[in-house]
Amino acid sequence: MAEMRLAVIGAAGRMGRTLVHTISETEGCRVAGGTERSGSEFVGQDLGPLAGLPELGITITDDPLELFTQIEGIIDFSTPAATLEHAELAAQARIVHVIGTTGMTEDDEQKLKAAARHSRIVKAGNMSLGVNLLTALVRKVAAALDEDFDIEVVEMHHKHKVDAPSGTALMLGEAAAEGRGLRLSERAVRSRDGITGARNSGDIGFATLRGGSVVGEHSVIFAGNSERIEITHKAESRALFANGAVKAALWAMDKKPGYYSMMDVLGL
Amino acid sequence: MAEMRLAVIGAAGRMGRTLVHTISETEGCRVAGGTERSGSEFVGQDLGPLAGLPELGITITDDPLELFTQIEGIIDFSTPAATLEHAELAAQARIVHVIGTTGMTEDDEQKLKAAARHSRIVKAGNMSLGVNLLTALVRKVAAALDEDFDIEVVEMHHKHKVDAPSGTALMLGEAAAEGRGLRLSERAVRSRDGITGARNSGDIGFATLRGGSVVGEHSVIFAGNSERIEITHKAESRALFANGAVKAALWAMDKKPGYYSMMDVLGL
Amino acid sequence: MAEMRLAVIGAAGRMGRTLVHTISETEGCRVAGGTERSGSEFVGQDLGPLAGLPELGITITDDPLELFTQIEGIIDFSTPAATLEHAELAAQARIVHVIGTTGMTEDDEQKLKAAARHSRIVKAGNMSLGVNLLTALVRKVAAALDEDFDIEVVEMHHKHKVDAPSGTALMLGEAAAEGRGLRLSERAVRSRDGITGARNSGDIGFATLRGGSVVGEHSVIFAGNSERIEITHKAESRALFANGAVKAALWAMDKKPGYYSMMDVLGL
Amino acid sequence: MAEMRLAVIGAAGRMGRTLVHTISETEGCRVAGGTERSGSEFVGQDLGPLAGLPELGITITDDPLELFTQIEGIIDFSTPAATLEHAELAAQARIVHVIGTTGMTEDDEQKLKAAARHSRIVKAGNMSLGVNLLTALVRKVAAALDEDFDIEVVEMHHKHKVDAPSGTALMLGEAAAEGRGLRLSERAVRSRDGITGARNSGDIGFATLRGGSVVGEHSVIFAGNSERIEITHKAESRALFANGAVKAALWAMDKKPGYYSMMDVLGL
Repeated sequence: MAEMRLAVIGAAGRMGRTLVHTISETEGCRVAGGTERSGSEFVGQDLGPLAGLPELGITITDDPLELFTQIEGIIDFSTPAATLEHAELAAQARIVHVIGTTGMTEDDEQKLKAAARHSRIVKAGNMSLGVNLLTALVRKVAAALDEDFDIEVVEMHHKHKVDAPSGTALMLGEAAAEGRGLRLSERAVRSRDGITGARNSGDIGFATLRGGSVVGEHSVIFAGNSERIEITHKAESRALFANGAVKAALWAMDKKPGYYSMMDVLGL
Repeated sequence: MAEMRLAVIGAAGRMGRTLVHTISETEGCRVAGGTERSGSEFVGQDLGPLAGLPELGITITDDPLELFTQIEGIIDFSTPAATLEHAELAAQARIVHVIGTTGMTEDDEQKLKAAARHSRIVKAGNMSLGVNLLTALVRKVAAALDEDFDIEVVEMHHKHKVDAPSGTALMLGEAAAEGRGLRLSERAVRSRDGITGARNSGDIGFATLRGGSVVGEHSVIFAGNSERIEITHKAESRALFANGAVKAALWAMDKKPGYYSMMDVLGL
Repeated sequence: MAEMRLAVIGAAGRMGRTLVHTISETEGCRVAGGTERSGSEFVGQDLGPLAGLPELGITITDDPLELFTQIEGIIDFSTPAATLEHAELAAQARIVHVIGTTGMTEDDEQKLKAAARHSRIVKAGNMSLGVNLLTALVRKVAAALDEDFDIEVVEMHHKHKVDAPSGTALMLGEAAAEGRGLRLSERAVRSRDGITGARNSGDIGFATLRGGSVVGEHSVIFAGNSERIEITHKAESRALFANGAVKAALWAMDKKPGYYSMMDVLGL
Repeated sequence: MAEMRLAVIGAAGRMGRTLVHTISETEGCRVAGGTERSGSEFVGQDLGPLAGLPELGITITDDPLELFTQIEGIIDFSTPAATLEHAELAAQARIVHVIGTTGMTEDDEQKLKAAARHSRIVKAGNMSLGVNLLTALVRKVAAALDEDFDIEVVEMHHKHKVDAPSGTALMLGEAAAEGRGLRLSERAVRSRDGITGARNSGDIGFATLRGGSVVGEHSVIFAGNSERIEITHKAESRALFANGAVKAALWAMDKKPGYYSMMDVLGL
């Protein structure tokens, strides 16, 4: 089968460079283009050296319309406004549109769904295969085990992170609460200090560690009487988001038009 | 709802005593009897003190037939021959029969299935809720992730264990192989030492640790490019097998006659 | 060498029974007696069955004075007042006195030190070999690594524990602070929730997990730029305190009179 | 205090570039030069862009003699022959010489020691602060705990690694054996498979995991009766070797001439 030709939106940015690098290393696809805004100093530059690769003979363009007609898919970690424009163009070109853009409103989502009648959109708040899989597992385990198993979520991130618990930890807590038919907002114990009393059955506890250069680790612990199940995700580098996005593009290549999530990619 | 009346087969043995203790501590059921072989010195003794409890006013009997008519379920970690006898009596009494007995043949299983037309049998090679759940999770994760994720199984047990890897580790490896559509016997790497060469994609690796008084810990690691998922079970005491058996009995109480596994109990 | 004859103070209590059991299983020593208060129903009973052992032919006495002249050491997890009385008798008998009693005042300690001019006292707030060793390691690592390594303490205990962080977690935090020449009270971050801002260099963070039947696990993490060191203690059962006390007694047998800690037993 | 001026040997190589980057980010020192062999295409190029930094206005030289007179230290991950030459020049210039070069013979070491009468050499087989610290801890713990604590070493590395156990795992095993007064070669159990029998007291077990992109993780487990101590090192990126080398240079700046190890740097 021919390799899937993929282009990267914002190809000179940090995430864009990582995506170009990842596409070039992944079997089944190849780098076929990259975009930057009109006026960017990078327009016209070769994509390779920006991504730590040899020259590819492919330069950055500020004309997505023309580019999209020559490829099978784009990967887009940009802004909501730009993503909506790309969605329209991708629908016209009937290609795959993988979206890692955050901050889109309910209204934006509706527009994406309209576009997805012609394109194949895969959209996720977190493009990591592992984190999406973890979320599904946690929901399932929480549903399978009764309240004799206490649920705790612990995460560690680098010292620069400014909020606690992490968004992913809260997402895992939500999945656990859903699995149990509870509302996280009513059962979350976000920290413990001092005389807390015994743990309430049905609570979902959080614990937060910060230090060093840790990219991100999350564990959900189901602690029962005499046994524990722990489900853990360890991120080793930020490249994993690029990996997930490229896998999503390859998965979507032979699918029907539609609006998909990473759960679809994982077959869950 | 009335409490489920449960009896323990072999109630004076080590597992039997743990079962009596666990039933007495579990909501929704109570100790209603116990058996030993005819001639045992324990026949006629009160079940409580044997299990580290106060006197219960219930003595060990060597007449299961009479006992089974007065209760809703039995828990049976005995021998294949004895289990087959109990299965017939439990079918006559139309009660729940939880079976943790090991070493039963294919032929024995057929007889159990015949009995299960009238009784409700729950049978498992390992009665731990957690280990059964882990097996299901591992199969699912192995199916969801492609071969870019390398699968490794690591386990630790106490210093007295004489074989490696543990039966549970191999069961987890089987589940991983099934999830991937592989045969474990063709892909298992059961140990590594010396110049092994790079890891082959699709292999399932095992690593074995032994020491101290560790009851049993198993992890299955899915190691991809830049991320890892780890699914871990930690046994804290052998009581967890009793816990699982009692949960199975309670689950089966309002089910139709049939031959069930711990997967059914977990709803997986 | 002859086996060390050891007696257990409060031999019919929960800790006392565990101690009798542990002594009976440990090479180099044997059960030589046990005490209870005058009037206790257990005086005169055989020590064995109380500890889940066969009859030993040794009964519980309420006369420590006579007992102490026939043995080489006692293990004492009792009350401050009783421990002071035993310390005097042990000094007269010139035997080993292992003390796990908590709640003793500065004044009490002075009296123990006076007694230790004739006896050999080993006293510790926590008799676990592992926890004492961990404390020493943490102090050393904190001193060896500079502030580029962030220090975090995480612990997990069963669902019944009512305070956070655990006393042992705080003790480990103190050891870390000492190693760095800091005061824990000024640098402890006992929990995190919400917008915390980036981590301050020099802080010592705590995170607390609660659930199930976990006996007690503590980790101290030193997270630097691109690497982490983690030092972990896992308690599997409360028997470890009895193990540590018996090891302390055996260690002290051939020592000079003095007032020792578990650090001395460990040779640190 | 003035910043330490550091030069990097082989500054255009992969490790050299990482070193330049690390020096530029570390307080207390700055990039003051870099060398390559005569004839290298990189001679005369600016050090900055090679290391992913802006231009530094400092170019790569092939004349170490002149360079060494203008700086306080060099970091040298090169070949044995080149390192011996640098050692002589560094001795003449009386500067710090940090050596991460591997494969040096006993004879080479003698020459380095001679040079170290004038320079300050810090040499290590593994420049990671954490791994060196771990080795010291393992030796100490193995000496403090008796043979009731079983010692196991488990490591995980990426799928490309061709040997097992890792060199670092064996180094940790050696440290454990030394702490116990044993010979590793007589007590190592490098893998387990099949009917192994119960674990022998005094054995040091190894277990090897391979998969994904794991940079390197090592744990030494001391498993006793009812408790475990685990000492773990996790490498997050290969930058940690550069970090350790730069720390060693800074540490050596105000030391007397001599031949030092990472243990000296750590104060152990």
